[in-house]
Amino acid sequence: MLKNNSQKRIYLDFASETPTSKKVLQEMKKVQSKNYNPSNIYKEGEEAESVLHEARVRVARVLGVRDHEIYFALNSSLSISSAIFGTLNYYKSKNIKNYIKPHIITSNIEHAAVLENIKYLERAGEIEASYIACDEFGILDPIKIKNAIKENTILVSIIYANNELGTIQDIKNISKKIKEWKRGNRRKENAFPYFHTDASQAGNYLSLYIDMLGVDMMSFNGSKIYGPKSSAILFKKESIKISPFYFGGGQERGLFSGTVDIEKVAGLSVAIEEAQKNIKNEKVLESIATKRNDLLENILKNIPDAKLNGAWNENDWKKEKVGIAREDRIAKRLPNNLSIYLSDFPSDEMTLRLDQRGFAVSAGSACSAKSDEYSHVIYAITKSKKVARETIRVTIDKDTKEEDLDRFVKVLKEIYYKFRK
Amino acid sequence: MLKNNSQKRIYLDFASETPTSKKVLQEMKKVQSKNYNPSNIYKEGEEAESVLHEARVRVARVLGVRDHEIYFALNSSLSISSAIFGTLNYYKSKNIKNYIKPHIITSNIEHAAVLENIKYLERAGEIEASYIACDEFGILDPIKIKNAIKENTILVSIIYANNELGTIQDIKNISKKIKEWKRGNRRKENAFPYFHTDASQAGNYLSLYIDMLGVDMMSFNGSKIYGPKSSAILFKKESIKISPFYFGGGQERGLFSGTVDIEKVAGLSVAIEEAQKNIKNEKVLESIATKRNDLLENILKNIPDAKLNGAWNENDWKKEKVGIAREDRIAKRLPNNLSIYLSDFPSDEMTLRLDQRGFAVSAGSACSAKSDEYSHVIYAITKSKKVARETIRVTIDKDTKEEDLDRFVKVLKEIYYKFRK
Repeated sequence: MLKNNSQKRIYLDFASETPTSKKVLQEMKKVQSKNYNPSNIYKEGEEAESVLHEARVRVARVLGVRDHEIYFALNSSLSISSAIFGTLNYYKSKNIKNYIKPHIITSNIEHAAVLENIKYLERAGEIEASYIACDEFGILDPIKIKNAIKENTILVSIIYANNELGTIQDIKNISKKIKEWKRGNRRKENAFPYFHTDASQAGNYLSLYIDMLGVDMMSFNGSKIYGPKSSAILFKKESIKISPFYFGGGQERGLFSGTVDIEKVAGLSVAIEEAQKNIKNEKVLESIATKRNDLLENILKNIPDAKLNGAWNENDWKKEKVGIAREDRIAKRLPNNLSIYLSDFPSDEMTLRLDQRGFAVSAGSACSAKSDEYSHVIYAITKSKKVARETIRVTIDKDTKEEDLDRFVKVLKEIYYKFRK
Repeated sequence: MLKNNSQKRIYLDFASETPTSKKVLQEMKKVQSKNYNPSNIYKEGEEAESVLHEARVRVARVLGVRDHEIYFALNSSLSISSAIFGTLNYYKSKNIKNYIKPHIITSNIEHAAVLENIKYLERAGEIEASYIACDEFGILDPIKIKNAIKENTILVSIIYANNELGTIQDIKNISKKIKEWKRGNRRKENAFPYFHTDASQAGNYLSLYIDMLGVDMMSFNGSKIYGPKSSAILFKKESIKISPFYFGGGQERGLFSGTVDIEKVAGLSVAIEEAQKNIKNEKVLESIATKRNDLLENILKNIPDAKLNGAWNENDWKKEKVGIAREDRIAKRLPNNLSIYLSDFPSDEMTLRLDQRGFAVSAGSACSAKSDEYSHVIYAITKSKKVARETIRVTIDKDTKEEDLDRFVKVLKEIYYKFRK
């Protein structure tokens, strides 16, 4: 049926980036003519301001929060940096006398956007940091997080769904544990430590409903949810306070200075609305999970040496109904993700060889693809640099075709057994 | 000729924002299909990377620098914040023993993106700061800047062309003075203090050729030069070192983490190329200056109480050939800007009343339009809060029609004498 296999490109890297949906593009086009500087008080500025307001209300409704709790950032990195530096700067501004060095808790499977900021602050002597280790399945224990909280803990930041493994953390339960600690220590609900989650990978498959999650802050962006690139959200509960981490015209109530691009903002608001609508359609999610499970079985059958990272063992995998998170049930893994260890085959080389054959997959996360380092996430669950250097990530979406996945396995097998070291 | 005056909108706020040019939109469309994450090593990522590289080379060529001296930021605020915090963080990282609190020099007519960052750092006790005062014409004396440099000065940041007044600083001479200080103090050329300029308002009318300017760092953005919104550049000379001020995937060699949006980047590179091509066309610049001078004369004739802010006196104004900067001659004012003091008429109200009649102008800069404060720039040159609250900014461009400006003056006069307090 395929006319020319060598030319057709199969994209299997949806965790790195999603295409912008038609609906989002339409929305962006709709507001294009109104794309003036919303800081201005004349008519064009007011029109832009009203687009901005509508978008904010739309995002707030999806998250079940108030519109002034939504901040538009330029990307996830800035949203996350603002949560981390903003909490620290606020703490600093309040504790001038008898200053105690603050403490931040995170995990060993965070995205670089969280981890590198915290490591930097630790190196610079600004904070103490605790990196909670996940188990061999890539799951964090909420009790361990609670036990790590100290008097001087100002922030806990935990990734909702991991970008490399797709493993999902029980954010709801972690929130509960942090609140327990606060009650036990006679702290107000809005006191330190704040709880932030990096939800960049979650929007397509997991609920971002704030009342259910119980977080104080949340970051996510457009380019992972079929929205515009360079667009992101910081949700911050009204009752908690953070300070800006850079300054300027004071846009987004001082947190994200710089003229707001209302096209992006409008597109992002539609993207998150669509994404969160889709997760209510259990059939779509199940069909993605089924496709992914079939792909895994097919890989394991054809390449008996391949191993799945970060999941319970392969027998359990089959029994468990994986990947579909409902508000009342937290599944352990995103339905579209596979992290596969291909022993004795450097993942960079595999990515390039697959590329030659028309398949786009990822070696670790895209953000570290060009560095020489191994994946810190795969290392965290396996304690093996070898595995962390020989793992590929395959992420599909609802439009991925079974026949393309079959061909993918065929090509993967060929390459693996031909060029294995 | 105008069919319906009440409906035609006349935009006279080009210093706040320029429309995106056709050529830029075309370029963005051209690369749209390649807009993948350039961090990926597969084909699509490589294509995006090559768009990114081309754009970087294009910007570098326009500025006369090397391509790895060009960093793509998300907006001017971030570019500027990176220059300021980046210099401070680098200084901190190098001076752990016998740490001396660093000193930063800036002026009292900077954009908030510079000023607010520096004020914040000063308040937080991180730096000492000197704010060099301009004269009553809005011009800074390079000697005063040189005289303010101290042993612990790490950065001088001076705005190239002011956003409210359009006054142009002699960046070339300031560079020379800073270099003189370094030689006199046996410092290497790449030692502290670094020299950064905020060139956000300059690109359309002044040369950004780095060898001529002699700066170490420069910031500017797309939305002021007929380029895409949320797109900006940081130029940083290879020989000087700064540290990131936030962390993440490490894009743009660590300075601006977050997936790069190559559509914006490509559009921006074309915008700066076009803008700097246009400044070589003396006729176009002269015709804008002539239009602006006619507008001023017309205003002064019809509203004798109106006053021009920040220029030499009105007689000098007519004699001087204003606004056109050549590399060998620094004019004192952008050719498209007028800052007009309308005594006893609050500028916010004037902006709104003009808006009702179809004209978009600005009360102070757009970035402070919605706050209650008076313009710190107009205050800097007049020492009068009254003037700073009763000033409007009118900025035109090459396509502004004389007939629209004539109508503008008529309406301005009507409103002024009808509603004057």
